[in-house]
Amino acid sequence: MKLYYAPGACSLADHIALIETGERFDVEKVDLKAKRTESGADFTAINPKGYVPALGLEDGTVLTENIAVLSYLADRAGSLLPDNGMRRWRVLETTAFVSTEVHKNFKPFFSPDADDKRKAEARDILDKRFAYLNERLGDRDYIVEDEMSIADCYLFVTLRWAKEVAKISLPARLDAYYARLKERPSIRKAMETEGIA
Amino acid sequence: MKLYYAPGACSLADHIALIETGERFDVEKVDLKAKRTESGADFTAINPKGYVPALGLEDGTVLTENIAVLSYLADRAGSLLPDNGMRRWRVLETTAFVSTEVHKNFKPFFSPDADDKRKAEARDILDKRFAYLNERLGDRDYIVEDEMSIADCYLFVTLRWAKEVAKISLPARLDAYYARLKERPSIRKAMETEGIA
Repeated sequence: MKLYYAPGACSLADHIALIETGERFDVEKVDLKAKRTESGADFTAINPKGYVPALGLEDGTVLTENIAVLSYLADRAGSLLPDNGMRRWRVLETTAFVSTEVHKNFKPFFSPDADDKRKAEARDILDKRFAYLNERLGDRDYIVEDEMSIADCYLFVTLRWAKEVAKISLPARLDAYYARLKERPSIRKAMETEGIA
Repeated sequence: MKLYYAPGACSLADHIALIETGERFDVEKVDLKAKRTESGADFTAINPKGYVPALGLEDGTVLTENIAVLSYLADRAGSLLPDNGMRRWRVLETTAFVSTEVHKNFKPFFSPDADDKRKAEARDILDKRFAYLNERLGDRDYIVEDEMSIADCYLFVTLRWAKEVAKISLPARLDAYYARLKERPSIRKAMETEGIA
């Protein structure tokens, strides 16, 4: 497998998941503005949508969209997402929440033409989302019950954006959770490889 | 099971999926402004996030987030989402695309304080997304290969918003796909029940 990534983008969640599952994989950096991969390939020929993550599989097919890629990696490896039972659905529910209600609200912080009013509105919404997640987390180490899952991989990436890009003060438990995850070997390794450690 | 819905909201996708799978279920309308269900219950006690869909299960637990609810319904019934193989991942990929790249870009059309500039920007993005989906659809009847899936249930809802709310001209094949789906019995029935036929 090969993961096409941009440093610190939401593909970091897949990068972390790949290391966590113990699978063998390669990574290749993508310049999202030039739509070129590090080795010079035309990225739009790999993913016509032009964004990451894109996961190249052994048979040459390419899978995109973060929720699909994360679920694929987890189901393939038999970790980070239970096969069945309510915990499976709670992990998918939380992963979808992180994608649609957290990640998507960072848009003004990655748009060069977004004004301060839009950023302030986005910060207000994100504050509410993080307050909810802080409650959900409680005193546990992971966002869904007591085990690392794809939801943690993705949530970590958005918390990093909150701190590094949007300058949002996280609620205390979520902030401590972020600090703990940041020291986790899989996450340190992924960030080092992406040059953002 | 009980589906909590708002007329024409993204919960319509789950409503269609429930009818398609042949499961027995109830529906209850939610007033999203007042946060009250039709029978007078406090909806924030059912889903603290305050939005639909919310799916009440037999054991009293409630599942939320459209991608999770749609996947749950499909896996439970053994239809609308293959158990395994690449088609499963293509369906999830497309469902995630509809959620994060299509649905989320309708936000200005549902925000009372969004100005015309934002709506125009959103229309530009949506035009690109629909052009991509139109290419993907080709001459087939369904958005992923030759079988109805949860991706069609969700895409139908966003095409309805494009036509009814955002007044977007859909590309020809996607427009014909919408017209066909609109006559499908499951979709007619769901829309009649929601009072939007």
